[in-house]
Amino acid sequence: AGNPQAGEEKSAACRACHGANGKATAAVYPDLAGQKEGYLLQALLAYKNGGRSGGQAEVMKAFVAGLSDEDMANLAAYYASLKP
Amino acid sequence: AGNPQAGEEKSAACRACHGANGKATAAVYPDLAGQKEGYLLQALLAYKNGGRSGGQAEVMKAFVAGLSDEDMANLAAYYASLKP
Repeated sequence: AGNPQAGEEKSAACRACHGANGKATAAVYPDLAGQKEGYLLQALLAYKNGGRSGGQAEVMKAFVAGLSDEDMANLAAYYASLKP
Repeated sequence: AGNPQAGEEKSAACRACHGANGKATAAVYPDLAGQKEGYLLQALLAYKNGGRSGGQAEVMKAFVAGLSDEDMANLAAYYASLKP
């Protein structure tokens, strides 16, 4: 599993849409707080390898392009650790 | 917005993966309880029109094939209404 503290440090860019507490800023973006860690990581990896489309996939691909696998594991752990 | 009661009546098929209370039965399926209604509806519509891939998209496409737009609106309202 990832490291939530390290994930928090990487989450600045996510907050515009996913909120400072993992509750999305608009109804068309998903809440991430308390979501399943495995699902979050799977989604990030799918955006990175082009295996996920739909919604804001193009925006997400730009954000994950600069993230390492470890960053993504830490981000998944961070958002899963937040209270839904 | 959709009708949560009507959505609950349509949710039997969803429970195997998304749980009886909207908390997924495995870490690779997303929790739906308390998720944004707009996001849920957008995801269902995207599965229906083929605009979303990744994860269990093929399975989801099979499930939504039999749903009307009203069913999908009601399901989105139902899951959004559950406590996360």
